[in-house]
Amino acid sequence: MKFTINKDEFLKGLLQVGKIIPTKAIYPTLTNVKIELNDAGLVLTGSDGQISIQSTIPFFIDDKEIIRDVEKGSILVDNHIITEIVRRVDGKEISFVALEDSIVEIDNEKSSFKLNSIRGEEYQDIDFDENGVKVTVSAKQLLEAVNQVSFAACIKSTRQVLTAINMTSDSSHISFVATDSARLAEKDIEASTTERFSANIPAKSFIELTKSITNEEDVVMFISDKKALFQLNHTLMTTTLTGGDYPNTKNIIPKSFQYTLEVNAFEFLNAMDRVAILSGEKQNVVKISMTENKVVVSCRSSQLGSAEESIKLFKYNGDSLEISVNNEFVSSAIKALNCEDVSLNFNGAMKSFTISNKNDPNIIQLLTPIRTY
Amino acid sequence: MKFTINKDEFLKGLLQVGKIIPTKAIYPTLTNVKIELNDAGLVLTGSDGQISIQSTIPFFIDDKEIIRDVEKGSILVDNHIITEIVRRVDGKEISFVALEDSIVEIDNEKSSFKLNSIRGEEYQDIDFDENGVKVTVSAKQLLEAVNQVSFAACIKSTRQVLTAINMTSDSSHISFVATDSARLAEKDIEASTTERFSANIPAKSFIELTKSITNEEDVVMFISDKKALFQLNHTLMTTTLTGGDYPNTKNIIPKSFQYTLEVNAFEFLNAMDRVAILSGEKQNVVKISMTENKVVVSCRSSQLGSAEESIKLFKYNGDSLEISVNNEFVSSAIKALNCEDVSLNFNGAMKSFTISNKNDPNIIQLLTPIRTY
Repeated sequence: MKFTINKDEFLKGLLQVGKIIPTKAIYPTLTNVKIELNDAGLVLTGSDGQISIQSTIPFFIDDKEIIRDVEKGSILVDNHIITEIVRRVDGKEISFVALEDSIVEIDNEKSSFKLNSIRGEEYQDIDFDENGVKVTVSAKQLLEAVNQVSFAACIKSTRQVLTAINMTSDSSHISFVATDSARLAEKDIEASTTERFSANIPAKSFIELTKSITNEEDVVMFISDKKALFQLNHTLMTTTLTGGDYPNTKNIIPKSFQYTLEVNAFEFLNAMDRVAILSGEKQNVVKISMTENKVVVSCRSSQLGSAEESIKLFKYNGDSLEISVNNEFVSSAIKALNCEDVSLNFNGAMKSFTISNKNDPNIIQLLTPIRTY
Repeated sequence: MKFTINKDEFLKGLLQVGKIIPTKAIYPTLTNVKIELNDAGLVLTGSDGQISIQSTIPFFIDDKEIIRDVEKGSILVDNHIITEIVRRVDGKEISFVALEDSIVEIDNEKSSFKLNSIRGEEYQDIDFDENGVKVTVSAKQLLEAVNQVSFAACIKSTRQVLTAINMTSDSSHISFVATDSARLAEKDIEASTTERFSANIPAKSFIELTKSITNEEDVVMFISDKKALFQLNHTLMTTTLTGGDYPNTKNIIPKSFQYTLEVNAFEFLNAMDRVAILSGEKQNVVKISMTENKVVVSCRSSQLGSAEESIKLFKYNGDSLEISVNNEFVSSAIKALNCEDVSLNFNGAMKSFTISNKNDPNIIQLLTPIRTY
């Protein structure tokens, strides 16, 4: 096996695959990147055991020769080491030669590296097959949906299923739901499938997927019982699914509200952040006090002191109401809506409330208030 | 006590003093900043127990009123909280009022904060008096000296004295020495004193001092047995000295060399960094092999493989020589010299070597080679 390759394209491929490759792993081969030269080009594969990425560098990009002087084969080398070498060598091209099964030589005009390596066949089997329901979604919409819900998933949880984003399809829509039990985010997007499915995709995998999206128009997904496969230009990504039943969230979002507060997102976020400086021991608890004529956010810590700020731009409907909320959760929800004006919709000081954007009925953020007594 | 102050100047002062104030401390008052309004202006004081900084915000800067509506007094408030408040509030001015001994109110047009506080008298006594030998040095030279030697001091050590920079004066020069026993850096600068002194200034304190230097021409130092005091514009800094006798380093720097290698700093550093990717278990060990016609840097790890690179720009005098060095130490030393061409001067594979800059005889970097067998 050998090839001479454009350094920048090689580095780009290594970084795309390598971002998920762990530096330490239970199976030592997982710290390697698999480098395979076949008819499609140079195929790089990496995996952390849950997510796997395969990226293909073609022989030519827009008539420009990227890979030349080739001999087919495959080999495993330490991902961190090969990436650092390709990142740091000077010059435009790198030659890569497998001298024996266990040594590869990497040369450019100045430097020469001999790396210990492993035969390509030793790499774990990774299933990049097209199984299950095929769905095509707009890359832009997918990106937006993941950004708008993923923060609400648990990072670590005893209920493993809450670390996933639940993706379900009825007939013409796909809905994305994430919840950590204290808050919930849901977004619906259009998609070209008539088949129903429900899959728990690890939020981490979805976030990695969105990082891999570059100039794609669409993303093709294949959802099976065991895995999800995502097809991008020159890149495949597959992830195992999270087991367990996702909680039924269909009926927990209130349909009507007794109190509605419309605010400017920027002003409201800044005011909340400022008063939250004094949240101290009661981490991130901010009180919102609303009447028709005045909206005040405030915070009190017996240790540090107190803070309050009046909101200038608002429209409030309802009787007077005081509610304590987690500032960080409210901020994340408002930021995820990504719009100028937001509505906070309440049914009482102790009831779940929603944060929504008038112009986008397909996204909803549900939060629970904080009991301060 | 009360005052209304320009927000930006208040924040600048708080940041200058606050950078050394710990967020947690054995003495709770140390997490506070002392805010005192007196005839000089608003005097902010902070300390971590070793370093103390006092910064004065004057009433006027270039005819522009900075502080108005004043009433003298002093008070302690939590440094982190007050800094965050001043950083985040909108508007150009902030009003600060001590309502009682234990509460201050901070207001601007939108927000209002009531902070718990402590009477100014409760702050620990800090000695900013002008005691001991007075020395004036150019701020630029002091900055350069600290940058060129401080990295060679120990960060933590059982020999406490090695965490300091030893500053000694004969008659017309001050020399700065730092060593962690494996390497030593020494820089001499001119200074206006005829008195001899020797002081072990914690390297950390010197580094904080250089961060406080802004547009000063000179720095005035007062060196006593117990402390060093540094005077900058509107800012005083004092530090306790490190106890113990500094090792005598006068005679350990060789005067003559059998082998001399001149290289381009940029090329040499990059080549060393590249081959060091493969240093693996032998952390940072790089071998330099020199003959009259060829200079090669190389690295070998039984686990990862090997790397080598020829140096293109060099001039070598001496018989052939191979020496193993710590790449990180050599890199730091070369970077500290901050010049285009450097000389590496050897007396044998097992003897200390120096790295120097032909154009600056006042700076010397001494390193020990690494025994690889």
